Amino acid sequence: MAFNLAPLQNLIDQFERMQGIGHKTAQRMAFYVLGLSETEAREFAQAITDAHTKIKQCSICCDLADDELCPICKSNTRDKSVICVVEDPRDVAAIERTHEYNGTYHVLHGAISPMDNIGPDQIRIKELVARLGDDMVEEVIMATNPTVEGEATAMYISRLLKPMGITVSRLAYGVPVGADLEYADEVTLSRALEGRSLI
Amino acid sequence: MAFNLAPLQNLIDQFERMQGIGHKTAQRMAFYVLGLSETEAREFAQAITDAHTKIKQCSICCDLADDELCPICKSNTRDKSVICVVEDPRDVAAIERTHEYNGTYHVLHGAISPMDNIGPDQIRIKELVARLGDDMVEEVIMATNPTVEGEATAMYISRLLKPMGITVSRLAYGVPVGADLEYADEVTLSRALEGRSLI
Repeated sequence: MAFNLAPLQNLIDQFERMQGIGHKTAQRMAFYVLGLSETEAREFAQAITDAHTKIKQCSICCDLADDELCPICKSNTRDKSVICVVEDPRDVAAIERTHEYNGTYHVLHGAISPMDNIGPDQIRIKELVARLGDDMVEEVIMATNPTVEGEATAMYISRLLKPMGITVSRLAYGVPVGADLEYADEVTLSRALEGRSLI
Repeated sequence: MAFNLAPLQNLIDQFERMQGIGHKTAQRMAFYVLGLSETEAREFAQAITDAHTKIKQCSICCDLADDELCPICKSNTRDKSVICVVEDPRDVAAIERTHEYNGTYHVLHGAISPMDNIGPDQIRIKELVARLGDDMVEEVIMATNPTVEGEATAMYISRLLKPMGITVSRLAYGVPVGADLEYADEVTLSRALEGRSLI
């Protein structure tokens, strides 16, 4: 069903286009906007245009940046000899949250997926290779997703980089901390067994 | 955790302020915006300001309108002798969806709720009373929500209108169509028993 008011219906349609937002939620969001004060609504609209116009890709690591370089590539305290390769800017944020990693990143913006017509040229692999030319990089950590596509991408890149004399590593597989063994799937469990370490 | 980019973080915060939108969803929505083309992002922002500036309240029924009057109050085919009183513009949309009602509406924009400091003066009751002066209205259907607040509001308005010689009715209570009796709560079931009809 539709509201008879074009501006309202248009706003509902805009929200509904987002992945994971159903009609009811879109409707509730549109009513939230109607309930905002004029200044708040203007700020909301401005935030959308701002995010869109001000955020670019870092010219080194392809992560999101509001400048020529992202804050990590700009920083002097990060270890430039290690590059952690991820699929998505959100993965950078996830790894940063651990506060355990002090190297740099490279964001591929996708993974190789022949089913979706995404080959090595559609993701930022040549940008990664270009960064390895100056002999500064010693290790590349593959942190693509533990999916078929992520695996294939990690494998492709590692084969590409090994002849260049660079150490390529992969994130460890295993049971997630805090999880119940009973509910772990077979593949994860067998990977955890393979990767077991002495205590 | 936060992204280091102010425009992105600002947009995430904007989405997160909405009721029912958590941090993860807000983040996904912000990334959706980043993925839009420039025109699409401009249209999205425009939809927000448009909805906010163009939508007002109908001067008769207090429903949302993009003009002085809402489409229902403007229409010549609607029966002006019946007014259905609801709490929210979304309730108008819900009743319209039945295609069973041809009268007009009155939107209260809330219900009497002393706990939240909402008394009869905070909702559009005097606007309703003002509509009843010209003798055209014969029946007022109370379609407030079946909650304590909705009930109290219906009761309050019916006591106010009865001395004016207007028929005041209430939506029927009962088991929802398609539901399982086993899961109906006691209050609903006892109301359904009370309101039983001959077949």
